[in-house]
Amino acid sequence: MSIDNHLHNQATTGEWPPKDNVNPDTALVVNDGVAQPPIINPYMKVVKKRPALLSVEEYLEGIFAANTTILSKAITLVESALPAHRVLAQKIIEGCQKYNSERGFESMRIGITGVPGAGKSTFIEAFGGMVTDKGHKLAVLAIDPSSEKSKGSILGDKTRMETLCNNPKVFIRPSPSAGSLGGVARKTRETIILCEAAGYDVVFIETVGVGQSETAVHSMSDFFLLLMLSGAGDDLQGIKRGIMEMSDLIAITKADGTNKDKASMAKALYANALHLFPPTESTWTPTALTSSAVTKEGLPEILAKIEEYFALVKGNGYYAHKRREQAKFWMYETINESLKNSFYENPLIEECIGNYEASVLAGKTESFTAAEELLEMYYKRKEAENRE
Amino acid sequence: MSIDNHLHNQATTGEWPPKDNVNPDTALVVNDGVAQPPIINPYMKVVKKRPALLSVEEYLEGIFAANTTILSKAITLVESALPAHRVLAQKIIEGCQKYNSERGFESMRIGITGVPGAGKSTFIEAFGGMVTDKGHKLAVLAIDPSSEKSKGSILGDKTRMETLCNNPKVFIRPSPSAGSLGGVARKTRETIILCEAAGYDVVFIETVGVGQSETAVHSMSDFFLLLMLSGAGDDLQGIKRGIMEMSDLIAITKADGTNKDKASMAKALYANALHLFPPTESTWTPTALTSSAVTKEGLPEILAKIEEYFALVKGNGYYAHKRREQAKFWMYETINESLKNSFYENPLIEECIGNYEASVLAGKTESFTAAEELLEMYYKRKEAENRE
Repeated sequence: MSIDNHLHNQATTGEWPPKDNVNPDTALVVNDGVAQPPIINPYMKVVKKRPALLSVEEYLEGIFAANTTILSKAITLVESALPAHRVLAQKIIEGCQKYNSERGFESMRIGITGVPGAGKSTFIEAFGGMVTDKGHKLAVLAIDPSSEKSKGSILGDKTRMETLCNNPKVFIRPSPSAGSLGGVARKTRETIILCEAAGYDVVFIETVGVGQSETAVHSMSDFFLLLMLSGAGDDLQGIKRGIMEMSDLIAITKADGTNKDKASMAKALYANALHLFPPTESTWTPTALTSSAVTKEGLPEILAKIEEYFALVKGNGYYAHKRREQAKFWMYETINESLKNSFYENPLIEECIGNYEASVLAGKTESFTAAEELLEMYYKRKEAENRE
Repeated sequence: MSIDNHLHNQATTGEWPPKDNVNPDTALVVNDGVAQPPIINPYMKVVKKRPALLSVEEYLEGIFAANTTILSKAITLVESALPAHRVLAQKIIEGCQKYNSERGFESMRIGITGVPGAGKSTFIEAFGGMVTDKGHKLAVLAIDPSSEKSKGSILGDKTRMETLCNNPKVFIRPSPSAGSLGGVARKTRETIILCEAAGYDVVFIETVGVGQSETAVHSMSDFFLLLMLSGAGDDLQGIKRGIMEMSDLIAITKADGTNKDKASMAKALYANALHLFPPTESTWTPTALTSSAVTKEGLPEILAKIEEYFALVKGNGYYAHKRREQAKFWMYETINESLKNSFYENPLIEECIGNYEASVLAGKTESFTAAEELLEMYYKRKEAENRE
């Protein structure tokens, strides 16, 4: 299913099942009599219907049957802010979670990031094709808060992933557009569960190489792949420090043509550097490889490395351990996010915090004094609110 | 002033100024008549006096005059959990903060961590001596929550820092013993401000190379020094991934005797590896050096590098920028910590969260469902509490 279909499905607002070729936004209410050409009444208002929701069972059945239209609709619910949608989404997620664990479904969740210019989309296009050729079903998700979207998340890259878009074994979903990283991360994590219930056994979670999103991706993937360019130094401008030490594999991209030797040299350098890092908890030894999305050279080796990793961690129990730890992490992370939102979105705090921050930045107020005063305000206001 | 004196001062509970050799725990109330041997009355209760607190002005005057006894007492207030002490401490901190900024006092806050066995105490002993020989006044602080204390914070290392302990230009203060990392970090950060007001222009903040404390140290120091051993790989077991990319300088310790060649090789390897990292925000290029606490070789080069760093960041404005960002960071960090404490220390949550976590770990409950249920409980309980 192509990304265009998904976008179409998302935009659909008619009843279920949808009537083909009817755009409900412009559809007119006609009488049910004998067939006749539609009467266009200029005084009649366009009736915009809310989409009729399926039942939890219908969603689950559709997802388990790998119906991508229903999967897309379920993901839209996951991404929705409406309380009714959230309740329904929660039930769907739980159903999928249960289904996955009951049939012992073991996916490979692969986080992918890279320095700007490393050709992430081109890599995913070429590598994704190879993954499906090997018989896998692939879901490509993204996690980038809307503000960062322009810097290169899937929607913008659509054109660079044309083959993948039309590959029936691939499901592509752009990053949820809602605000905070915490919110986007939650939605992406829930989307992974839904995709796995629909049989996608390889999940790419891509992110741009800036900001905090790598940590979020790291905390929801089994394997972390970092795409780098051959020239160190200047090319590294766009990437955050600390990402290299999170990586399970560094792939030097664009190792073709005149760039090939430079890429091999970079590979050797990075391999050496990785060797100096503290050992990973998984006992895996991260390494560096070269690859070319043009000649496809190096891609089979990358897949082989990834498979080797999964064989190792499934064997030594780290795979299950990490999944459990991630589940725990997200429970606490969600709580902490919610507590913070409740504070920072309080109107009184929103009004005052700017001044406090400015005063702290100017060295006029001590950080802890500012924090304590704001907290006192918040708790007093909360108390007053509850008394009302 | 030696560490013993500090410990003695902390334990003192008599009035101010303390009477030498009188232990107030066992002192008896005697009449004020002519001098006579104390009458021991077995029916008389031992009167345990609380230490009389000085006024804010007295504390500030003492600190500004570099009176280490008063400085120690003020730090004890900072570390205290008593509300009255907190109020007083806050005023002292603000006074010191104001004093530091008014006289444009610019210190060098140096975070130091290292792999286990790298000889952190021995390094600090030798390097600290060199720093004071150069005319600096040095404060050595630590940040390690109590549970990690046995792994090597200053108190345990007292014997390995004997020269430094008796150096009048050095002020050593062990890590506050109170619980959470957040709390310890706050206290250490406040202690830095007090020490600077007392004229200590170089501050070492040391931490053991495990857990989250490096990040905390990193967020309160200007420069981050990582001590490493010559053999990579196995020696790195004790250190967390990601620390290397935080470092401004890696010092390979124990570069003496038969270990010298190995250390030089390690230095070259690490220098190469550091070169592959993304550039630092400060535009500083982290590097690696060798050093020996025995022969003192390499120590002057390390100090020169640190001075070079401070010249760079003071020149390009990063020094002031980072200090401001840290102040902002700690304002938000304190708020977030407090919000979390209020939740996790709520008796209802404390009672239930274990079961939820177990259920999430077992894959029975979805992370986000568990989080939402716990949050709902918490807010309902809060509301009920406020209504009472």
